[in-house]
Amino acid sequence: IAGVPILGLDALASASYGPEALLTVLIGLGTLATQYVPWITLLIVGLLGILYVSYRQTIAAYPSGGGAYSVAKENMGTNASLLAAAALAIDYVLNVAVAVSAGIGALVSAVPTLLSYTVELCLGVVALLTIVNLRGVRASGAAFAIPTYVFVASLFAVIAIGVARTVASGGAPVPVDPPHLATPHATTSLVSLWLLVHAFSSGCTAMTGVEAVSNGVPIFHPPAWVGARRTLTLIVGILVVLLLGVAFLSRAYGITATPPGTAQYESVLSQMVAAVVGRGPFYYVAIGSVVAVLCLSANTSFADFPRLCRIIAVDRFLPEMFVHRGRRLAYSFGILALATTSAVLLVVFEGITDHLIPLFAIGAFLAFTTSQAAMVAHWWRVRGPSWWRHLAVNALGAVATATTLIVIAISKLEDGAWISVVLVAGSILLFKRVRAHYDFVAHATAARDVTLDFRKSEPPIVVVPMLRWDAVTVKALRFAIGFSPEVMAVQVLTGDRDADDLTSRWRHLVVEPADRLGVPAPRLVVIHSRYRELLRTLVRFVRHVSSRHPDREIAVVVPQLVEPRWYQWLLHTPIASLLKTALLLRGGPQIVVINTPWYLDAWIPEQRRLAAPPMRGGLGDAAPT
Amino acid sequence: IAGVPILGLDALASASYGPEALLTVLIGLGTLATQYVPWITLLIVGLLGILYVSYRQTIAAYPSGGGAYSVAKENMGTNASLLAAAALAIDYVLNVAVAVSAGIGALVSAVPTLLSYTVELCLGVVALLTIVNLRGVRASGAAFAIPTYVFVASLFAVIAIGVARTVASGGAPVPVDPPHLATPHATTSLVSLWLLVHAFSSGCTAMTGVEAVSNGVPIFHPPAWVGARRTLTLIVGILVVLLLGVAFLSRAYGITATPPGTAQYESVLSQMVAAVVGRGPFYYVAIGSVVAVLCLSANTSFADFPRLCRIIAVDRFLPEMFVHRGRRLAYSFGILALATTSAVLLVVFEGITDHLIPLFAIGAFLAFTTSQAAMVAHWWRVRGPSWWRHLAVNALGAVATATTLIVIAISKLEDGAWISVVLVAGSILLFKRVRAHYDFVAHATAARDVTLDFRKSEPPIVVVPMLRWDAVTVKALRFAIGFSPEVMAVQVLTGDRDADDLTSRWRHLVVEPADRLGVPAPRLVVIHSRYRELLRTLVRFVRHVSSRHPDREIAVVVPQLVEPRWYQWLLHTPIASLLKTALLLRGGPQIVVINTPWYLDAWIPEQRRLAAPPMRGGLGDAAPT
Ligand SMILES: [K+]
Ligand SMILES: [K+]
Ligand SMILES: [K+]
Ligand SMILES: [K+]
Ligand SMILES: [K+]
Ligand SMILES: [K+]
Repeated sequence: IAGVPILGLDALASASYGPEALLTVLIGLGTLATQYVPWITLLIVGLLGILYVSYRQTIAAYPSGGGAYSVAKENMGTNASLLAAAALAIDYVLNVAVAVSAGIGALVSAVPTLLSYTVELCLGVVALLTIVNLRGVRASGAAFAIPTYVFVASLFAVIAIGVARTVASGGAPVPVDPPHLATPHATTSLVSLWLLVHAFSSGCTAMTGVEAVSNGVPIFHPPAWVGARRTLTLIVGILVVLLLGVAFLSRAYGITATPPGTAQYESVLSQMVAAVVGRGPFYYVAIGSVVAVLCLSANTSFADFPRLCRIIAVDRFLPEMFVHRGRRLAYSFGILALATTSAVLLVVFEGITDHLIPLFAIGAFLAFTTSQAAMVAHWWRVRGPSWWRHLAVNALGAVATATTLIVIAISKLEDGAWISVVLVAGSILLFKRVRAHYDFVAHATAARDVTLDFRKSEPPIVVVPMLRWDAVTVKALRFAIGFSPEVMAVQVLTGDRDADDLTSRWRHLVVEPADRLGVPAPRLVVIHSRYRELLRTLVRFVRHVSSRHPDREIAVVVPQLVEPRWYQWLLHTPIASLLKTALLLRGGPQIVVINTPWYLDAWIPEQRRLAAPPMRGGLGDAAPT
Repeated sequence: IAGVPILGLDALASASYGPEALLTVLIGLGTLATQYVPWITLLIVGLLGILYVSYRQTIAAYPSGGGAYSVAKENMGTNASLLAAAALAIDYVLNVAVAVSAGIGALVSAVPTLLSYTVELCLGVVALLTIVNLRGVRASGAAFAIPTYVFVASLFAVIAIGVARTVASGGAPVPVDPPHLATPHATTSLVSLWLLVHAFSSGCTAMTGVEAVSNGVPIFHPPAWVGARRTLTLIVGILVVLLLGVAFLSRAYGITATPPGTAQYESVLSQMVAAVVGRGPFYYVAIGSVVAVLCLSANTSFADFPRLCRIIAVDRFLPEMFVHRGRRLAYSFGILALATTSAVLLVVFEGITDHLIPLFAIGAFLAFTTSQAAMVAHWWRVRGPSWWRHLAVNALGAVATATTLIVIAISKLEDGAWISVVLVAGSILLFKRVRAHYDFVAHATAARDVTLDFRKSEPPIVVVPMLRWDAVTVKALRFAIGFSPEVMAVQVLTGDRDADDLTSRWRHLVVEPADRLGVPAPRLVVIHSRYRELLRTLVRFVRHVSSRHPDREIAVVVPQLVEPRWYQWLLHTPIASLLKTALLLRGGPQIVVINTPWYLDAWIPEQRRLAAPPMRGGLGDAAPT
C-alpha cells in the first residue's frame, strides 16, 4: 500500500479531469448528458480492465522496469523505440500541462476571484515545480502520501454519502448546494453516435498514468513483481470506484460540465462535492487535496522526463548535454526543456484543460499502444512457457489501445490532436537528425587502427602577433623559437596608443643575438592597418601565410596578459581572447593556436626566469644547437 | 551667424531653465519675488560679461580648441587636468539630465495630461538620443538651425510685445492668459540675503554652455578666432537679451515659479508666453521650439562626452576601451556611460529640474574655474606681448567664477551639491587608480632592453587530454610529439558514454611504432573520476605535473572538434573551450595552452594528410631523428 501514493498518484489524479473531459463534450445536451455518462464510463472501465491485465504481464516480464522505449528497442528495433520515445515525451509534456491546468481549474472553482489569473497561476506552478526539481529537493514520502490519502478518502466519502442519499431518496436526492444549471443549447436533443465517440475519446484521458507501476517495479521488495502487481490492482481498483462513483453522482444529482474558459466555469468535482456535502470546511479540504494531487502528478513528469531524455541521449538520439558530466547538470537540461514546452502549451491554450485534452489523449494512447505492441513482440521473440497465452493478453491490450487511438485520432484530429501528431513526427525527425550527425562525426574522426606516426614532419611555420616589445610578447616569441626555426613576428600598427614600430630595434633585440649563436632569427613583419582592424588584419595575414604554404601547419602563438582580478579585465581590450576565437573559426584548417599566458601575479619569479633561464641536463639538451 | 545654432544652442537653451531656477528658490515670497529678479539677473549678466571677455582670450590663445582638460594639462599639470576632466564629465552628465528634464517640463506645461509620465518621458528622450548617437546619425545643419532660430525669434517676439504692452499700459499690462497665482506661504515676507544668494546660485546655471564656442574654434574659416569671437559675441548678446527680457516680463506680469514636481507645475516660460500672447498656435510653436532646443542641448553632451573620455583614456586615466579599435566602437562606450549615468540621475531625482540644479551649478562652475585658472597659468608661462593684461582678464574670470563656485558650494551643499563633490572626487580617484594599474602593468611587463634569448632551453612537458582515440586526438598527439620528447596522454574516465580505456591498445597504437623508430613514446595516464568531474580532474592533474617540475613549462595540447554550423555546437559539450579557459585561469604560471582544432568541413584532405604526411626537404629535416 506504500507504493500507491508514489506510483498511483498520476493514475488517480486523472479521475479529476477524465470524467469532466467526457462531460464537457456533452455540454450541448444539457442534463440529458448525465444519462449517457454511466454507459461511456463503463466502456472506459472495460478498456482500463484490458490495460490492467496487460500491464500485470509487463510487470512480471520486466521486473527491472518496463519503460516503453527500452521494451520497444529490445523487441521491435530502432524505429519503434523512437516512436515510443516521441510518444512518451509528448505524454510527459502534456501530463504537466493538463495536470497543472486542471489543478488551477479546481482552485478557481473554490476561489472564483482567481479565475482571471488562470494562465499566470498555471505558469507559477510550472515555475515552482521547475525550481524544486532543479534544486533537487528530495520530497519526503509524506509529501506524496498525505495528499493522496486525503484525496482518496474524501472522494470516497463524498461518493458513499451521495450514493446513500440517492438510495434513501429513491433516486432523487436534494443537493445541499445545487450544481450549475445545464446551459440550454441549440443542439440540445441532437444525440449522435459521433458525439458519444467524441465523449469517449476525451474520457479516455482518465486512464493516463496507469503505466507508472510497470516502470517502477524495482522500488518494491523482492519478489518485486508480487508487490507491484498488488499495488497495480489496488490503484486500478480505486480508480474504477472513483470513475463509477463520479458517473453515478453526475446522473443522480444532474451535474453537468460548465463552459470552460468562461466566467461560469466550475469544475465537475467541485460541483459534485458541493452538491453532496455543501461548501463547508470539508469541501475546502477535498478540493485542496485535488489541487495538491494534480500538482504532484505534474511533478512525476519532472522526475521522469529527464530520465527519458537521458536514456535517449545515451543512444545518441539527443544531444550529449542530456547525459554528460554529472546527473544533476544533465537532468537540469531535461527539466528546463519540459518546463519550457509545457509553459508554451499552457500559454497557447490559455490554461484551459479542455483544449489540451485532445493532444493528451493522442500522446497517451500512442504510448500505450507502442508499449503493448512491444510486449507482443517480446512474447513472440522470447517464447517462454505458455507464451501464446501471454501474447494473446498483450495483443488484446494492443488492439484495444490501437483501436482507441484510431478513434481518438479520427474524432479529435481537428480539435488539436494534429498538434500531437506533428510533435511526434517532429521529435522522431529530430532524433534521427541528431543521431545522423553523431554518426557522421564518428565516421569522420574514426582512427581506430591508425597507429601514431612518429616520422619527423616539418615543424610548423610560427606566427607571433606582437603589439609591442614587452615581457608578455617576449615570452611568446621565446616559446616560438623553441619549437620551430621559421618564426614570423607580426606587428599591426593601428595608430592606437602604445605601439611603436619595432623595425629599428629588431636588429638589436633579435637578429644580433641570433647571429651570435648562429641560429635563424625570427622575421619581423610590420603591417599598417588604416582602418584599425587589428583582428581582421591578423587573421588575413595568417590565411595569407597558409595559402602560400598549403602543406604546412601554421602555429599562431598568442601572447596573453592574465590579470588576477576580474575587474582588471575591464581595463584591457580582450584582444587575445578575440584573436583565439577568430583564428579557430576563420583561420583555416592548417591552424594551431598556441596561447602563452603571462601572469601578472607571478611576474617577479617570471622576470627572474627570463633574465637567466635554467639550463639543467635533460632530454632537451639532446637537441642540436 | 551659421555657428550660432551649433555652438550657441547649449548656451541659449539655459535661458529656459536658469531664470526658472532662480524664481523657484524665491517661490516662498509669492509675487514679491518678482521685485528681486531683475537685480539678481543683472548680477548674473555681469558675471556673464566677465566670462565673455575671458573666453574671448581663450579663443585667441587656443585656436585649435581650448578644452579645459588640455589647457589645464598643458599649463598646470596632471592633478589640475584631472580636476578639470572630472568637472567636465559631471558637467556633461548633468547637462543631459537638466536639459532633458527641463524639456519635458516645458512639454508637460503645454500638455498637462502628460505630467504623471514625467520620468518615463525623460528616459524616452535619453533612449532616443542614445540610439541616434550610437547609430552615428549625421544630423544636418538644419536640424539644429531651425529650432534655434524659431526659439530665439519667438522669445524675442514675446519679449518685444510684452515690453511694448507694459510701456503702453503704464507698467501694468493685462495678461491674455493670467499666470498662476503665487502660492501664499508662511515665510512670505522673510526676505533674507541668504535667500537671495541661494537664488543667485541657482540662476547661475543660465550661464552654462558659453564655453562651447572656445572648444569649437576649429570649425570656423581662417582666421578662425575672428569668426569664433564674433559668434561668441552674438550668442552672449542674445542670451543677455533673453535673460533681461524674462526678468522684465516676470516683474511686469507678476510671473512666479510653480512648485516643481506637483500637479500645479507649469514652467515660467510657458506662463510668460501664455500671459503675453495667449495659448494660441503661436504658444505651441514657441513651446515646441523650447522642447526641441533643450533636447538638442542634451545632444551636444552626447557628442562631447565620448570625445572627452577618449582624450582622458589616451592619457591612460580611463580604460582603453574608450580609445581602441575604431572611433565608432570607442565612442559607443562613452555614449552608453553618459546615457546610463544621466538616466540614473533622472530616475533618482524623478525628472525634476529643480532638484538637479544644485548638482549642475557645482559641476559647471568647477569646470569654468579650472578653465579660467588654467588660462592664468598659460599667460604666466608663455608671457607673450602684453601678457600681464591677458593674465589680468583671465584672473578676473577665475576669481569671479571661483567666488561663485564657493557661494554655490556653501548655499547649495545640503541641497544636493555634495553629490557633485562626491562624484568629482570619485572620478579623480578612479582616474588615478586606472592610471596606477596601467603603470604597474607597464612596469611589470617592461622588457625594453631585454634581447631575445636564443639559448636552447628544455622543451616543455606536454600533456594531451584525450577522451578517446580518434582523428581529433591523434592530431593533437602528433603535434605534441613534434616539439617535445616528454609527452603524457591523459585519459579521464567518467563513466559517461564513449570513452573506453585505452590502456590495452596503447602498446599497439603508440609504443610499438615509437620503438620501431627508436624515439621516446608518449606515456598514457588513465584517471578514473568517480564524480564525473572531467575539467577539475584535468586541471588538478596539470597542476600536479607543474608542482613536480617547478622549473619546466607545461604545454597542454587541447584537441578540439570544430563544426561548420553554429547549431551543431549545441550537440557537443563545449569541453575544449571550458578546458582552455580553466587552464588559463587556474593552470598556474608554468602553463602554455596549445589548441589543435580539427575541422569537420575539411576532414577529407585532413584524413589524407594523416595517412601519408608530406616529407619534403626543409628546415625541419635538419633536426635529428
Ligand atoms: K489515470
Ligand atoms: K495522469
Ligand atoms: K502519463
Ligand atoms: K547658458
Ligand atoms: K546648458
Ligand atoms: K555644458
